[in-house]
Amino acid sequence: MGLTVNLKNDVSTRKRGTRNLMTDVPGVKVANVTIDENDVHTGVTAILPQSGNLFLEKVPAASNVINGFGKSVGLIQINELGTIETPILLTNTFGVGTALNALTKYMMKQNSDIGDTTSTVNPIVMECNDGDVSNIRKMAVTEDNVLQAIKRAGAQFEEGAVGSGRGMMCYDLKGGIGSSSRVIEVDDATYTVGTLVMSNFGFLGDLVIDGEPIGEEIAKFFKASQKKEEHGSIITVIATDAPLNSRQLKRLANRATVGITRTGSFIGHGSGEIVIAFSTANRVSQYPKQQITTVQSFNDEKIDAFFRAVAASVDESVRSSLVHAESVVDRKGKLRLSLPDALKKMTGDSQVNQAMVTKVKLALGVE
Amino acid sequence: MGLTVNLKNDVSTRKRGTRNLMTDVPGVKVANVTIDENDVHTGVTAILPQSGNLFLEKVPAASNVINGFGKSVGLIQINELGTIETPILLTNTFGVGTALNALTKYMMKQNSDIGDTTSTVNPIVMECNDGDVSNIRKMAVTEDNVLQAIKRAGAQFEEGAVGSGRGMMCYDLKGGIGSSSRVIEVDDATYTVGTLVMSNFGFLGDLVIDGEPIGEEIAKFFKASQKKEEHGSIITVIATDAPLNSRQLKRLANRATVGITRTGSFIGHGSGEIVIAFSTANRVSQYPKQQITTVQSFNDEKIDAFFRAVAASVDESVRSSLVHAESVVDRKGKLRLSLPDALKKMTGDSQVNQAMVTKVKLALGVE
Amino acid sequence: MGLTVNLKNDVSTRKRGTRNLMTDVPGVKVANVTIDENDVHTGVTAILPQSGNLFLEKVPAASNVINGFGKSVGLIQINELGTIETPILLTNTFGVGTALNALTKYMMKQNSDIGDTTSTVNPIVMECNDGDVSNIRKMAVTEDNVLQAIKRAGAQFEEGAVGSGRGMMCYDLKGGIGSSSRVIEVDDATYTVGTLVMSNFGFLGDLVIDGEPIGEEIAKFFKASQKKEEHGSIITVIATDAPLNSRQLKRLANRATVGITRTGSFIGHGSGEIVIAFSTANRVSQYPKQQITTVQSFNDEKIDAFFRAVAASVDESVRSSLVHAESVVDRKGKLRLSLPDALKKMTGDSQVNQAMVTKVKLALGVE
Amino acid sequence: MGLTVNLKNDVSTRKRGTRNLMTDVPGVKVANVTIDENDVHTGVTAILPQSGNLFLEKVPAASNVINGFGKSVGLIQINELGTIETPILLTNTFGVGTALNALTKYMMKQNSDIGDTTSTVNPIVMECNDGDVSNIRKMAVTEDNVLQAIKRAGAQFEEGAVGSGRGMMCYDLKGGIGSSSRVIEVDDATYTVGTLVMSNFGFLGDLVIDGEPIGEEIAKFFKASQKKEEHGSIITVIATDAPLNSRQLKRLANRATVGITRTGSFIGHGSGEIVIAFSTANRVSQYPKQQITTVQSFNDEKIDAFFRAVAASVDESVRSSLVHAESVVDRKGKLRLSLPDALKKMTGDSQVNQAMVTKVKLALGVE
Repeated sequence: MGLTVNLKNDVSTRKRGTRNLMTDVPGVKVANVTIDENDVHTGVTAILPQSGNLFLEKVPAASNVINGFGKSVGLIQINELGTIETPILLTNTFGVGTALNALTKYMMKQNSDIGDTTSTVNPIVMECNDGDVSNIRKMAVTEDNVLQAIKRAGAQFEEGAVGSGRGMMCYDLKGGIGSSSRVIEVDDATYTVGTLVMSNFGFLGDLVIDGEPIGEEIAKFFKASQKKEEHGSIITVIATDAPLNSRQLKRLANRATVGITRTGSFIGHGSGEIVIAFSTANRVSQYPKQQITTVQSFNDEKIDAFFRAVAASVDESVRSSLVHAESVVDRKGKLRLSLPDALKKMTGDSQVNQAMVTKVKLALGVE
Repeated sequence: MGLTVNLKNDVSTRKRGTRNLMTDVPGVKVANVTIDENDVHTGVTAILPQSGNLFLEKVPAASNVINGFGKSVGLIQINELGTIETPILLTNTFGVGTALNALTKYMMKQNSDIGDTTSTVNPIVMECNDGDVSNIRKMAVTEDNVLQAIKRAGAQFEEGAVGSGRGMMCYDLKGGIGSSSRVIEVDDATYTVGTLVMSNFGFLGDLVIDGEPIGEEIAKFFKASQKKEEHGSIITVIATDAPLNSRQLKRLANRATVGITRTGSFIGHGSGEIVIAFSTANRVSQYPKQQITTVQSFNDEKIDAFFRAVAASVDESVRSSLVHAESVVDRKGKLRLSLPDALKKMTGDSQVNQAMVTKVKLALGVE
Repeated sequence: MGLTVNLKNDVSTRKRGTRNLMTDVPGVKVANVTIDENDVHTGVTAILPQSGNLFLEKVPAASNVINGFGKSVGLIQINELGTIETPILLTNTFGVGTALNALTKYMMKQNSDIGDTTSTVNPIVMECNDGDVSNIRKMAVTEDNVLQAIKRAGAQFEEGAVGSGRGMMCYDLKGGIGSSSRVIEVDDATYTVGTLVMSNFGFLGDLVIDGEPIGEEIAKFFKASQKKEEHGSIITVIATDAPLNSRQLKRLANRATVGITRTGSFIGHGSGEIVIAFSTANRVSQYPKQQITTVQSFNDEKIDAFFRAVAASVDESVRSSLVHAESVVDRKGKLRLSLPDALKKMTGDSQVNQAMVTKVKLALGVE
Repeated sequence: MGLTVNLKNDVSTRKRGTRNLMTDVPGVKVANVTIDENDVHTGVTAILPQSGNLFLEKVPAASNVINGFGKSVGLIQINELGTIETPILLTNTFGVGTALNALTKYMMKQNSDIGDTTSTVNPIVMECNDGDVSNIRKMAVTEDNVLQAIKRAGAQFEEGAVGSGRGMMCYDLKGGIGSSSRVIEVDDATYTVGTLVMSNFGFLGDLVIDGEPIGEEIAKFFKASQKKEEHGSIITVIATDAPLNSRQLKRLANRATVGITRTGSFIGHGSGEIVIAFSTANRVSQYPKQQITTVQSFNDEKIDAFFRAVAASVDESVRSSLVHAESVVDRKGKLRLSLPDALKKMTGDSQVNQAMVTKVKLALGVE
């Protein structure tokens, strides 16, 4: 649902989709499965690019590695063939192997030809390290968690400290899942760009909301030490129903950086920042009746409308992940504050710049 | 000289070099040659990575293509060999051929072995399209302009609407050359990161200074129409004396995006955004006495200090290009306002948000 | 015209086009302008991807850098936008600046909007270093040479030591321009793949024809010393009329390596190996009436037929450049033998493996 | 142990290491674990780049994607950081998830800091699809298989239809693991390049040995139909003890193509061809005492010796995988012939070109 208020500096059309979620792109489904047991605070988020059989009808796609300190799998084949043929899974770094196994089994169950009469399949699993909050060494994600996430996927889903975002930290505050969407008109037709992030990046002192250095103010109030190293990451997934090809989707994926850094990050060394973009138009058949078919093609000349939508929607997705996250007790029993909770605690304190706190609350639509 | 005030949200150490210019990196020299005749408003800017014979002692380097709508030359070989062996020239798009010829002749004159007993040479020429302001079709840049720029290169140089920046427009205001630097301490030694931009990107309505949407305010005041297409670009050059290798320099070059987009841009389709980064340490010999030598190596673990320096110094360089540019009459006789001049005109007008204007003036250190 | 005999190990359909030249792809035109004065032995080769106005109707394209020790210009924008909008020029390394200037002027003359009311233009110039044979330091290529090459371009053209290939050396023998084509059927339609190389790579001792190490035999006979360093290169251009998009054309371009290395090369350090591939189908308009149009799309499933065609046609193009080259006296007065002339001299000599010479002659269709 | 005879056209120094295996590079260890039960014919091959704690002392590395129809994991981080910090595992496509889990656990056991006080870890798992021979849908590889492979790793190891190569097919003949090495002298010091392939690519009709189209002859004899699609792959790993950095290792990795295609392949659409190269010199510490240290650096000028070694050693590795493979009964009960067995069956048959068979046997050193 993104934010309830408008971005002050929104470079896009500012028109959001009905739900203000990635699922405003028709056919796209999302679900979160949260695992919250003892010192484990993690989960799985599944994104289904289209509602039918993905292996039989692949979607055009591209990826972009902003900073490659990451372990996402499946990107090599996306680059070569320009398609995605499985759901996209998000989880923690050490859940990737299990997610890969579960997704492979799911795809095999759905398609008896895979690995028998036809090729294998290219599972997409993306990850961030939630090890600051969750005991990642327990490798707690199960294949059942993955299957549940795929099964439950729908048009409505939660944001914040849920699913794979449960243990993620953004600017040293609770991060997680965030989503938003933008609507664009081209040639009298309407297209949607939807984005979803799993936010786990940034240093507290760098957080800026609409120019207000609120991160420094929070750090001062909570006497937070500047974290020495970042082991974070941010995963961004971009969906659209416009007929963009893989080259154009790569261009869109490149603009995720704009949205990500708009809250103050500088793309830290330890932050694996990976983007996938896909289009639900112009599907690619596993068993084409003809080798040459007719598809729709978009001229790059007006692609700026999509670039603007990506920048703004990713920006809002990051903020939304901060706004919707609840505070979480980490694996060592320490409370990890959400940004809204941090602002609440600071409200009224005489040593805090109350004007700044008020502005930031307004900018984010929180109380 | 960058800005006279500090950035509000500076992600770096905030320590600038003595000159607050790229030439704070020892040995780096820069010069501008400006061409301003009738409807031609263009020029050449030369950057010398080190003061000796570059062909004989190449510098480690890398490039990064943020958006490849550009015609810079020499990048392929930088990617393969990780070195630069000539001065770096900046000019307008249609000056590239002449700059290439002049630079080739300059290198041949300095090195009689080139193209005779040894290999050829890889000239680096980078460009933006200044065709909105200057009659680019006249191809006015001469080989002599180029040689003068190389010859004059020194530690002090002008910023703004000078050299290759003469005709460049940034956020539909006068852009051009901007520069800044940051100082970093590693293992008790001090290193400098210096950056220089040729700014020619962005739409007026997107310009944001410290969160203030001043671009919209300027557009409203001057009744400027939202430009339909961008034919701009931004060239960024990053220098350091730290012993970073080409892979690490590429990582630095990737962080230029952060600085570039901090004033509101979304990396437009028509904006060719290219970055080169080089190190003056660990030079690579054309005629090595031994194949295996000893060099200094920097562990990536602490590279964030450099990433922060790049983000902040490029951010300041972009602002500096706006601050130092004077207003220029374009090829059609229209006055192209600089940001300071625009703010000046708006000051005191009752229909303008004067609080915003004042904040922006303070943020930029202009009157 | 390629070879008059079949390749022994041809991985393709083995069906050649009518001319067995790149120009078998309808609309593609080629011409050579040779410069042969005193110690200058160089030239220009122009390739016109389609016969109309390229700027208004761009062709889908991609590039591939096999080894980036090269100075070709225009590749960055091909990668970003997936199109070519000018003729492709081939020349010597120090002719690039002049070719760039001439091509820019040619495009401006043809299109008065360039650099005025619309964007600039992205000239494609590719090069090899012919400095072993020609006095490259004289920078002898003129803008008129370039314009002549574009003007003369047609369906018939010479191969061997002509045009930009005049001074090129391949396996230390005379190289230059070589071309070939293959025909493919898809969905009952017929498509052509045409290739052209400018060959300037390889060490004599490595040359192998159909498994026969003829290079070693030649070296022994002529007491040629193993050259110490390679300053060579090979430029490959691939054309097709099949509706392949830029991603697929990049995959084609990647297969040029197969053809290039089939005669024994190992992709030497000093050999700049660059490939461009373009399709004449699905043109991209500079001024689209609609942003979204309908185009033909080819499913990758059967793309192997194209990969095979590229591998075989590039292989034959390299051989053809060797077969059609005449011996040339170099800038120092030394005769640079062609492969046919070398074989001729060896024929009948008792110290030479005559069986091998005979096999190689048969394999190449030379006497 | 590679081949017992010399390559006819060996572009390298032709000097092999003592074992003629990748493990001639000091410290490198390899082991195969073969799984052969009912319709499962697969396994795991483990490569240990150095004998100590890889996480604490990473090795410089690079990767190269020749054709990205593949599911290898870990390459993104290799590209960004230029290092490998775990053993390299080879297995079948659907074994990747389990291999990832096992390797993660192995690394955590060895390093209690991983995922707790420091970052996570980047496991490297590479794969080919052995589904033609083995029931890949059973996902038969166990974590114990992986741990056994790592544990058993040593300087001696088997080649052919063993380990992860058990079910692999090369040119429709039995492929699998192959290895070789070359020795190089630089500045009076001796360096080794060792290579290992898991071969699973190619169409029978394309196989060529020293120019002899033996594949066609085999196809004719066995009335093998030209396979319609390739679901194959080839994984190549290159090791050296020379102090090459990640950029230079990437250049080495790019030359694997030369060796791979020398037996006739054209890099098929369905063939995932991925290369990793690493150096055992200049290790990178997880916990550096100083950020800046001194390392050895190799000038690219003489890198051709390494390129030649890679081309020849990979060529020999591919042949060796064919030569050492035994015939295997596939998941459907069909005998999958090895190349030596195929040649044996053809020997003496009057319809076969016996001269060719004899030449090929001699070329491969088989009876």
